[in-house]
Amino acid sequence: MINLEVKGLNETLKEELAVVRTENTDVLERAQKGEEKYADSLGWLDTEEWADDAALKVIEDLAARIRREAQAFVLIGVGGSNNAARSVIEAIQLAGTPEIIYAGNTLSPNALNKMLKQLEGKDFWIDCIAKNFETLEPGSSFRILRKALKERYGDQANEHVICTGTRGSSLDQLCQDNGYIFIDFPLNIGGRFTAMSNVGLLPMAVAGIDVREVVRGARDAQTALRTQSPDENTAYEYACLRNLYYRHGWKLEMLSSFEPQFRHFYYWWTQLFAESEGKDGKGIFPVTGEFTEQLHSIGQYIQDGENMIFETFLDVKEQQDSLVIENDGLKDHFDYLDGKDFFDINKAAFHATVTAHSTKFPCNVFTIGRLDAYHFGQLFWFFQFACYLSCGIMGVNPFDQPGVEAYKVRMFKELGKE
Amino acid sequence: MINLEVKGLNETLKEELAVVRTENTDVLERAQKGEEKYADSLGWLDTEEWADDAALKVIEDLAARIRREAQAFVLIGVGGSNNAARSVIEAIQLAGTPEIIYAGNTLSPNALNKMLKQLEGKDFWIDCIAKNFETLEPGSSFRILRKALKERYGDQANEHVICTGTRGSSLDQLCQDNGYIFIDFPLNIGGRFTAMSNVGLLPMAVAGIDVREVVRGARDAQTALRTQSPDENTAYEYACLRNLYYRHGWKLEMLSSFEPQFRHFYYWWTQLFAESEGKDGKGIFPVTGEFTEQLHSIGQYIQDGENMIFETFLDVKEQQDSLVIENDGLKDHFDYLDGKDFFDINKAAFHATVTAHSTKFPCNVFTIGRLDAYHFGQLFWFFQFACYLSCGIMGVNPFDQPGVEAYKVRMFKELGKE
Repeated sequence: MINLEVKGLNETLKEELAVVRTENTDVLERAQKGEEKYADSLGWLDTEEWADDAALKVIEDLAARIRREAQAFVLIGVGGSNNAARSVIEAIQLAGTPEIIYAGNTLSPNALNKMLKQLEGKDFWIDCIAKNFETLEPGSSFRILRKALKERYGDQANEHVICTGTRGSSLDQLCQDNGYIFIDFPLNIGGRFTAMSNVGLLPMAVAGIDVREVVRGARDAQTALRTQSPDENTAYEYACLRNLYYRHGWKLEMLSSFEPQFRHFYYWWTQLFAESEGKDGKGIFPVTGEFTEQLHSIGQYIQDGENMIFETFLDVKEQQDSLVIENDGLKDHFDYLDGKDFFDINKAAFHATVTAHSTKFPCNVFTIGRLDAYHFGQLFWFFQFACYLSCGIMGVNPFDQPGVEAYKVRMFKELGKE
Repeated sequence: MINLEVKGLNETLKEELAVVRTENTDVLERAQKGEEKYADSLGWLDTEEWADDAALKVIEDLAARIRREAQAFVLIGVGGSNNAARSVIEAIQLAGTPEIIYAGNTLSPNALNKMLKQLEGKDFWIDCIAKNFETLEPGSSFRILRKALKERYGDQANEHVICTGTRGSSLDQLCQDNGYIFIDFPLNIGGRFTAMSNVGLLPMAVAGIDVREVVRGARDAQTALRTQSPDENTAYEYACLRNLYYRHGWKLEMLSSFEPQFRHFYYWWTQLFAESEGKDGKGIFPVTGEFTEQLHSIGQYIQDGENMIFETFLDVKEQQDSLVIENDGLKDHFDYLDGKDFFDINKAAFHATVTAHSTKFPCNVFTIGRLDAYHFGQLFWFFQFACYLSCGIMGVNPFDQPGVEAYKVRMFKELGKE
């Protein structure tokens, strides 16, 4: 299971944490059962609902067919419709699997033209993922990709289209009209919680990821965190810590890691917390640190700037890659590195950073066993549940996002949408 | 010149801004001349010092040779040693020029092995850029890349090595001992201010960027901003605005744009401000928004979360790319987009976002004419000078970074460095 170690808590904070943990046990108990008021958003709370054996069989069969036929697979989706899949794919995609190309996440003609260029001369499939098929980016990208398919495949174009949509939506209708393959976007899950469903799992499977391992990881996290008591529940501990820090004025949480493979997981995590918690004038603002590189840009601020950031580190225990530094006889003054493995050097930098930063503010250190499909599943479910708890303690609804309408209303008006 | 429009300032803020602009004219005057106390860090204040015609000639000749011989060019550098070049290269690199590969910016064996794999079978040169050749990432990457060169070129390996270092440094000595090409890292410029020197310009030139245009842009910004009065000086206005916002509790600045080509420019900008301003317990924390994509992750927080962020938008006036949405006869409910160009749709999203966000907090909107080499030059010099001014108003030294030592001391101890 995911391990949490906390550094830099003084005695006062420790005492206050004990109080927060005692006072919010009802939040944990309610979440473990699933609250009736959020019933239309809790389809992720039991992975059996949308990622059971039957669902995985459909995903695997469809993915196998695409992998035989396609050199590229275009994921049309934005935010919750692409972040989970992309997190895993960009981290651990297997060699020799179709190239995964992302669309539906921008309105920049420069970016879209580059995307179309990447597809030139390649056999490809597209998957349009949209819960609410009114969102501009996927809707507009779907149009230009339908055109690209038509140019390449003519009358057979429709055979290369999958839509992941909700039953009864206009996307569902479009599939029926045109013979596209339709698979379910869970009606009772908001985008940012859909990792363990067709939304997240089909693209992963196309990229050669073992989705049964992903789901097994999520399920193991679920089994533990939905039954563990307040004293032993790591997601609850993390949710309590976040709220404690927040009340002390640490209003930014920096998710940091020394492994760039987590880059796209950061985006998933950022959306999860920003969109769930950032409302009613409240919320911890999520930021991220890709170390060691960004120690050379934001490291100075973290150490000496305004004391308003706390940090959450993601660490991987097992060594999975190796590269040893040899001495080539030149006088480069780096002899202290002779024969050392970058794995160990990177770990030394990690330990030094946690030690240095925790002199200023509290640091949470999460450790997972390996960076693989199974542990990504754990991470998804863990943070989803922790986010649910954290919002409960903060007193906000984790599952809505009323604020995103503000610019959309103005934009649709400017574009002449009725 | 870069244009600045400010949205969302109420009458009180406007009056307070007038006061800030009146009270800090001495900061502008001193910076325009260059302060004696910062003499060893102001080599960028006159682009003639390190990017005059003679320097550019050397860069162009060397780049031309590399472009003839190499399929890949490895930039070994971290932070200030790679961010400026990478900003421009990733945005506007010309097709058919050597692939630019980045090293010296990570300790992850996974990332380094991927980098080495990218080089397999390619003719390549390396450029090790380091002001202080004690930094771990470039030093260690240089070692593994020397080995890769040796394996490919044997006795001719040294002919593929450039070092950008300071005179008299251990890197200089290494060049003399091994016959590497040595070019100057300016002694009197800190890394994050070195865009207009060999540090930033050689990699750009290798990537086919017209570096004379970059420098011309910087010089035009310099000529304007070093002579304009407080009333007409946009960099000064921006520096005053930032400090005004900061005093009102908007402690995060989000640099946002609707053009993903700015992605790496964000990293440059982030380092510039985080490292210059984040000290003595002060400083605005720089964050970035890549829109429209991130509107689907952090948009909710920006609109409805804690009111502690102000926003600075980067906009490009001229249309440089086009992609028109056609109607293919399907009932997709996106007919309001028929015949529209993504350029215009993206602009509509931009205007709607500025309008929505500026109801909550002030928004600065910078507009440049085109996204090209010339305007990148303007942006670099503009923000460097604005940062110098902003730090002056805030009362911190823009040119040091004492806080980055904290983890380094611990790390070097753990690694057994004497």
